[in-house]
Amino acid sequence: MGHGDAVNGSRYNQAMPFSFQVEAVNGQARAGRLLTPHGEVETPVFMPVGTVGTVKGVAQNVLEELGVEILLNNTYHLYLRPGVEIVRQLGGVQKFMGWNRPILTDSGGFQVFSLSDLRKVSEDGVAFRSHLDGSSHFFSPESAIAAQIALGADIIMAFDECTEHPAEYKRTKDSMEMTLRWARRSKDYFEAHKQGVPWFAGRGEQSPGGPSHVGFALDGVETQVLFGIVQGGMFAELRRESAQRTVEIDFAGYAIGGLSVGEPRPMTYEMVNQAMAFLPHDKPRYLMGVGTPEEIVHYVARGVDMMDCVLPTRAARHGLLFTSGGRITIKNARFAKDEGPLDPSCHCLVCRRYSRAYLRHLYASNELLAQVLNTIHNLAYYLDTMRRVRQAIRLGEFASFLSGVRPPHLSVL
Amino acid sequence: MGHGDAVNGSRYNQAMPFSFQVEAVNGQARAGRLLTPHGEVETPVFMPVGTVGTVKGVAQNVLEELGVEILLNNTYHLYLRPGVEIVRQLGGVQKFMGWNRPILTDSGGFQVFSLSDLRKVSEDGVAFRSHLDGSSHFFSPESAIAAQIALGADIIMAFDECTEHPAEYKRTKDSMEMTLRWARRSKDYFEAHKQGVPWFAGRGEQSPGGPSHVGFALDGVETQVLFGIVQGGMFAELRRESAQRTVEIDFAGYAIGGLSVGEPRPMTYEMVNQAMAFLPHDKPRYLMGVGTPEEIVHYVARGVDMMDCVLPTRAARHGLLFTSGGRITIKNARFAKDEGPLDPSCHCLVCRRYSRAYLRHLYASNELLAQVLNTIHNLAYYLDTMRRVRQAIRLGEFASFLSGVRPPHLSVL
Repeated sequence: MGHGDAVNGSRYNQAMPFSFQVEAVNGQARAGRLLTPHGEVETPVFMPVGTVGTVKGVAQNVLEELGVEILLNNTYHLYLRPGVEIVRQLGGVQKFMGWNRPILTDSGGFQVFSLSDLRKVSEDGVAFRSHLDGSSHFFSPESAIAAQIALGADIIMAFDECTEHPAEYKRTKDSMEMTLRWARRSKDYFEAHKQGVPWFAGRGEQSPGGPSHVGFALDGVETQVLFGIVQGGMFAELRRESAQRTVEIDFAGYAIGGLSVGEPRPMTYEMVNQAMAFLPHDKPRYLMGVGTPEEIVHYVARGVDMMDCVLPTRAARHGLLFTSGGRITIKNARFAKDEGPLDPSCHCLVCRRYSRAYLRHLYASNELLAQVLNTIHNLAYYLDTMRRVRQAIRLGEFASFLSGVRPPHLSVL
Repeated sequence: MGHGDAVNGSRYNQAMPFSFQVEAVNGQARAGRLLTPHGEVETPVFMPVGTVGTVKGVAQNVLEELGVEILLNNTYHLYLRPGVEIVRQLGGVQKFMGWNRPILTDSGGFQVFSLSDLRKVSEDGVAFRSHLDGSSHFFSPESAIAAQIALGADIIMAFDECTEHPAEYKRTKDSMEMTLRWARRSKDYFEAHKQGVPWFAGRGEQSPGGPSHVGFALDGVETQVLFGIVQGGMFAELRRESAQRTVEIDFAGYAIGGLSVGEPRPMTYEMVNQAMAFLPHDKPRYLMGVGTPEEIVHYVARGVDMMDCVLPTRAARHGLLFTSGGRITIKNARFAKDEGPLDPSCHCLVCRRYSRAYLRHLYASNELLAQVLNTIHNLAYYLDTMRRVRQAIRLGEFASFLSGVRPPHLSVL
């Protein structure tokens, strides 16, 4: 059993410290559970993306009913809107969004690199302009961690540079070295300021701030935990080195970043394998920003415990639906009179109630409910996949389960 | 007790014929219930508008949880998309949209007049162009009823001309006369073809078409019922005459149309009063396209049993929210740090879970969930208002209840 408290060398005495426990292993795949200040998460887990404090179109009670145990929020987006100070004053992002379960925030690094304009990277950090209004901002490892402490997610991420793809070896190594220096600075700032998390004061008492009618109970809560991020581009040697040296800094968990950025899928697997070999078994391993339903199963096979991706939600809004029979583009005219459910094997509220003809009509009519229902189904499909993955691992049948999943590099999105 | 079956002079022997029963009277206000092929509706009732087969952004199970007992769908919109033949083949609009409760369709007349381009009215009917693609169409009383029979709502409406406002006396009288001729043609067509409703064949057997997994049970179902529509513009004499002569044609219920089209509110009340005096007590009375939360209470006071309006749903999508403390424009910056619930007196899922600060953030960020949650709350507010109205009538306390409702012509939207 791993302990998040190993991060700062002391043991927590509260009721709900962070911990991670591997409970079953099948090959490289593991099933276990994360314990966080806002509750427990069964792993391997897929985290739906709630960019700006909402999974687009899906109310929090529906996410609960789907069995979502942890959400990802984007620091970059919440920093711009509504601003971290407002979220902090309202008690943290869980209270802010009325979600009394775990949340993970990314560091803002990836969004700064992918969304903002005119970014300028220096050893100190990244100057960037908001994609919303062009206003100027600066993220350093320290300010990105400060933002994440104020937002108050259960799990936060070191500030990293997501190396572009393709990149030369030297550029990739320089970027990796800077990410390692930033990881150290992230950890130092975190250790010095982690008691500033909005719900820290709530330990053993009524937590201030936040809507009193929501009624969160956070007795015995300690602080957030910080994960480091492995970079190293598409170079096996750098992935190994980044993993080793990130582990030396010592984090509560380890993410693998900078993948699924346009490289061929076999290369992604190879980079995951390289990093994975150097990540400790007793800490959670989080592969950032992946993948298709088939891919996430194959990543689990490589020892990944946590994943997130906008794919199920974004694809849903564009009418691309994942089903046990394959991808469906719901706007297709052949569904206009199709009275069957979207996926006969799915038990989500969409598949139980609506026909393909109705879903096609909603999408063709550009109705809000199309985006709502499509998103609910795609999330249900991902969550159900992960549920079956966990069960297979616990039953010792993961190899057989995996053999039934189409090799993702052969699948066409 | 009134009987919808009086429409065609025969008694229905099935388990669920259409009927309307007044169970309590307070002054002019009445509380009762409608029995339709798809279930019972307590009156007075507010019907949310599900234009094209969906209440924008709100899933059907949420509508059920809100206590919605009957929805309105727009014939014009469903006729254009997905087309009445598709809905008919799928078993009717209830099966099509996965809503196993009553539905009312309007006649299409109002939308033809308000939305379409290049309309040309003749004694035969209305030629118009689709607001979607400019294609040419024609609605006659016969074709509008045929469309509504194919759609298969529980309650359908005679085809009418909604007289524009303002209009001269002669123009209004001519329009009213044509609506009366169209009402007769609507009824004649309906009586000759009503067994064509998609779920008619379902009586006592498994209904064909529609997703089998939805599992509707429609044993003992008879046909739809047809309501007539009173017109007459803003002339008391014409309203009286229209009501009298529409009643002579004999419908299962009577609507008052052509109001809330820009006239001052006291004039609306006067026109309602004029028509109401001539409508039979044992038939449901439906005031079309109204109104604010205060107005709907005042219409009930005049004997109205049914109302519909896009206001709660449309206003919600624009961030205008109805609360027990008055209207709230949620985008207002003063809500940015407001940790209280939207309406402390409301028990809807939005007010129980989210803060004003969060709702303001969603709206300011143009998030889908803003429209979803705002719509749920506004509908909850309307439905709760109607629940309290019905209770007050049944307790004999409606006069006192009414005195607590701000006179609507003094309220500012």
